[in-house]
Amino acid sequence: MGKLYVVGIGPGGLDYMTIKAKKAIEESDIIVGYKTYIKFIESIIQDKEVISTGMGKEKERCVKALELSKDKIVSIISSGDAGVYGMAGLILELRKDENVEIIPGVTASLASASVVGAPLMHDNCNISLSDLMTPYNLIKDRVEYASKGDFIISLYNPKSKGRPHYLKECMDIIKKYRKGNTPVAVVKNALRDGESTEIFTLETFKDDNVDMFSTVIIGNSESYIKDGFFITPRGYLINK
Amino acid sequence: MGKLYVVGIGPGGLDYMTIKAKKAIEESDIIVGYKTYIKFIESIIQDKEVISTGMGKEKERCVKALELSKDKIVSIISSGDAGVYGMAGLILELRKDENVEIIPGVTASLASASVVGAPLMHDNCNISLSDLMTPYNLIKDRVEYASKGDFIISLYNPKSKGRPHYLKECMDIIKKYRKGNTPVAVVKNALRDGESTEIFTLETFKDDNVDMFSTVIIGNSESYIKDGFFITPRGYLINK
Repeated sequence: MGKLYVVGIGPGGLDYMTIKAKKAIEESDIIVGYKTYIKFIESIIQDKEVISTGMGKEKERCVKALELSKDKIVSIISSGDAGVYGMAGLILELRKDENVEIIPGVTASLASASVVGAPLMHDNCNISLSDLMTPYNLIKDRVEYASKGDFIISLYNPKSKGRPHYLKECMDIIKKYRKGNTPVAVVKNALRDGESTEIFTLETFKDDNVDMFSTVIIGNSESYIKDGFFITPRGYLINK
Repeated sequence: MGKLYVVGIGPGGLDYMTIKAKKAIEESDIIVGYKTYIKFIESIIQDKEVISTGMGKEKERCVKALELSKDKIVSIISSGDAGVYGMAGLILELRKDENVEIIPGVTASLASASVVGAPLMHDNCNISLSDLMTPYNLIKDRVEYASKGDFIISLYNPKSKGRPHYLKECMDIIKKYRKGNTPVAVVKNALRDGESTEIFTLETFKDDNVDMFSTVIIGNSESYIKDGFFITPRGYLINK
């Protein structure tokens, strides 16, 4: 009898995968995934059958992985955590009676946060700016509620060619509720090859270098920069 | 010259630590942490000096770890991700010129989500119900804004002896905005010894088994249960 592991491989650097994720991949006969993510783990899957497909083929990939898992050990991989904008949901939606195990991973907001300091120390939220499956009005409403609630905000999929102005519009919403000196971090390729970071404030923010491999983190009303580190204090009741 | 690793060890089970976290711990001369979390990694630190302290001694622990890191390799550990309600923020607040590296981990909401299915597939937030350093009114406001924004909500520190009624009051706020059949998961000791899960709806929710080792996840308006799995679909534009 086969099995399907739904594996979050973390940000991409092999050391930032969980031990369990690595074991699942090693145990698998077949690895299924989007080709960009397959590349991250190339060095540990050289003896495996690999089925990689391009962007937008998520459903085909999931159907195939489920089918193969009836009598093989299969891993379908997502970057970050498979359960956060990854493959876990679609696999479970399509699942009939296959044996599925979800293996969590370090999602992009956590990876990006660790690179710039400790911005997510308090209540925080993840919002994707992709409108492929969510109306833009709902995305903007969420940014507004998150701002009102003083959540630290991590923006996934912050900018793509088809919607270059969304990020700026969402930052304008946040500016209505937060001071101009609120820290903003742009982290590109966190904890993998090509990593780069920029630290701004809401006032100085520029989105020139932001792309689909970036995460943008906006601090709450207590966040500040110290010695280059982006810090949100743990509480609202202690003095800085 | 020494170094301080701020290590998120993930949910507790050794396999759910990142490879980097394990390497940092192995490389360290000294391990510092809250004794409950030290227990999780006991088997891999038997040759190390261990400094474990009780609850509420966070600042002392951080000061000590920073001091020791001037000429030793030290790991200060948090469960989950050190940057989410963990030690990373306080370390950076107290840091003078010590060499600090933050290593991310699988935070409780991700670990708990993976155990019950794929509840966090869409925009989501983490809210701690602990009022030790946050006024309860602000916590309730956040629950209200998160509800209005249709975020999936993960509640950390959901219930303690000093504030047994907060969880129920917060669920009542959420009920004003979400249908009675919205799925609610209680996951205790996710991915470590003693793991248990309960799946409710907002209507049937009971907090009898909830404690400080639990995470409570409340779905958004699209979440549903299928074959025992808690699923939030990826988008709002496709039909189920």
